[in-house]
Amino acid sequence: MPAYACDLAAVRAAADRITGTVHRTPVMTCGTLDALAGRRLYFKCENLQKVGAFKYRGAANAVLKLTDAEAARGVVTHSSGNHAQALALAARVRGVPAYIVMPKTAPAVKRAAVEGYGGHVTLCEPTLAAREQAANDLVAKTGATLIPPFDHVDVIAGQGTVALELLEDVPDLDALITPVGGGGLLAGCAIAARGVKPTVRVFGAEPLGADDAARSKAAGERLPQTGPNTIADGLLTSTGELTWPVIRDQVEGVFTVTDDEIRSAMRLVWERMKLIVEPSGAVGAAVALGEAFRALSGVQKVGVVFSGGNVSLDKLYW
Amino acid sequence: MPAYACDLAAVRAAADRITGTVHRTPVMTCGTLDALAGRRLYFKCENLQKVGAFKYRGAANAVLKLTDAEAARGVVTHSSGNHAQALALAARVRGVPAYIVMPKTAPAVKRAAVEGYGGHVTLCEPTLAAREQAANDLVAKTGATLIPPFDHVDVIAGQGTVALELLEDVPDLDALITPVGGGGLLAGCAIAARGVKPTVRVFGAEPLGADDAARSKAAGERLPQTGPNTIADGLLTSTGELTWPVIRDQVEGVFTVTDDEIRSAMRLVWERMKLIVEPSGAVGAAVALGEAFRALSGVQKVGVVFSGGNVSLDKLYW
Repeated sequence: MPAYACDLAAVRAAADRITGTVHRTPVMTCGTLDALAGRRLYFKCENLQKVGAFKYRGAANAVLKLTDAEAARGVVTHSSGNHAQALALAARVRGVPAYIVMPKTAPAVKRAAVEGYGGHVTLCEPTLAAREQAANDLVAKTGATLIPPFDHVDVIAGQGTVALELLEDVPDLDALITPVGGGGLLAGCAIAARGVKPTVRVFGAEPLGADDAARSKAAGERLPQTGPNTIADGLLTSTGELTWPVIRDQVEGVFTVTDDEIRSAMRLVWERMKLIVEPSGAVGAAVALGEAFRALSGVQKVGVVFSGGNVSLDKLYW
Repeated sequence: MPAYACDLAAVRAAADRITGTVHRTPVMTCGTLDALAGRRLYFKCENLQKVGAFKYRGAANAVLKLTDAEAARGVVTHSSGNHAQALALAARVRGVPAYIVMPKTAPAVKRAAVEGYGGHVTLCEPTLAAREQAANDLVAKTGATLIPPFDHVDVIAGQGTVALELLEDVPDLDALITPVGGGGLLAGCAIAARGVKPTVRVFGAEPLGADDAARSKAAGERLPQTGPNTIADGLLTSTGELTWPVIRDQVEGVFTVTDDEIRSAMRLVWERMKLIVEPSGAVGAAVALGEAFRALSGVQKVGVVFSGGNVSLDKLYW
């Protein structure tokens, strides 16, 4: 495997570092979904991870890797999603401050969740420039370390532990599907899975309404996501400078699914597996059930990552 | 332990019989719920059991225990709940017919679920007399064996395997809470848990709107449930002739909770544990979080059974 920002050794080191801090999530199966997919599916339940998403792995790895002096000054990120909660909890577990920049338009419930994990929230205007500025100001003021949501070697390595565990539990997988937004999970899992088992085929799963990774793969170059529009609100960002080369080289393909397919897969998982997955977390399952993936030959046992389970229970999704 | 319809040996025999047919469900924990309960809770996830409820254990045990000649003639029950689905699947797995009597007022979705598992549905008037008559007619006509939902030694023994597994996974439990409707789960678990570990304290969890077991415990005699009114629609029946003596002698107490407490516990489980439990399945958690149970001294580690996860996703519960 060529040199990327992150390698199998980094993923293994992350695994050693975060063991005991993160949940080793279960792998579950479901006869009904197998029948619909036409093959055996092994679901890695990161919706059951702490803070309800795989994001805690990368955040925990990044925070635990800091020196004591660095850690004492705290960590910073700008996010209103699962990474914000993950970083807040990872910092609290280490007993250091987390400064979270959120757009002032973020739902109150998201702010409350971050504060519930002990994070210090700074509100800013809802533009990327304002968020970056506010984060940089916090770094300048506190000396805290910036931990971005995906394009960071320690974050990618942490997310890769998902695939490491999955292949330990189900060594004879011949394919793996993970959702792709910024690509931290997909790149980390590709590095880990193909590092451990070079023959394993790795696929990305993306909403049609935020299909930059699929378009980038088709073009052979990293294309930005503009104007995303999908129920899968954790997958709106473009792939990163560090994650894209891995996706370009080590991921066989990125399959897209419609919001209706996502909703339908999500409902099946709630109904038949009794597991709450969020829309973004169900995109891998939607791909596995979709026509294009089912037409793929030579694939018998597929690992599928349920990446998160953070939904509002105040609304119906169907 | 005095002689009841079912003993530890019968539960162990059931465990041997149904291994490989039923899921060995995971035991899960949640820091948030522990903090609210003031002690460590170990949730036995029977909502992740086949057909979405512990009922499959008892049904599978009863069906597998039949001789080949008996089995060939099929099985009968009258139920519109999880037992109906459980028996239909258990029969299909053995390749024999299941005849399910349902009141014609039962929701179409419940009928469809039974038929989805291959059960033959007979509709009748919505009275107990009509249901019993229809079931007896089917027995007379087909020679099939009647498998009632709870008051049957093989059913009680099958349900007891829940506690057997839980104590294997968490041997230092000092208490166990299960929901109680007809009492198959509670009696089976009391026999198994106290058979394996005589010091373990066993409690029932009941909705206030269907509190016959709590009233029976207070009176020292089996009282019927009349006019039940609760969201926990799996717990409407009275305890049985076989289950009651076990509950009377081996269960320390039955705690009741309001529908609001049930709803609130159910929401916490969905939100924090990402697990779908049905109202009846959340009653044990509601008790563990309630004031009366929290006031109990000398209890550190409590097993709580999530008994089922079959809900309609077309409605909000809060």
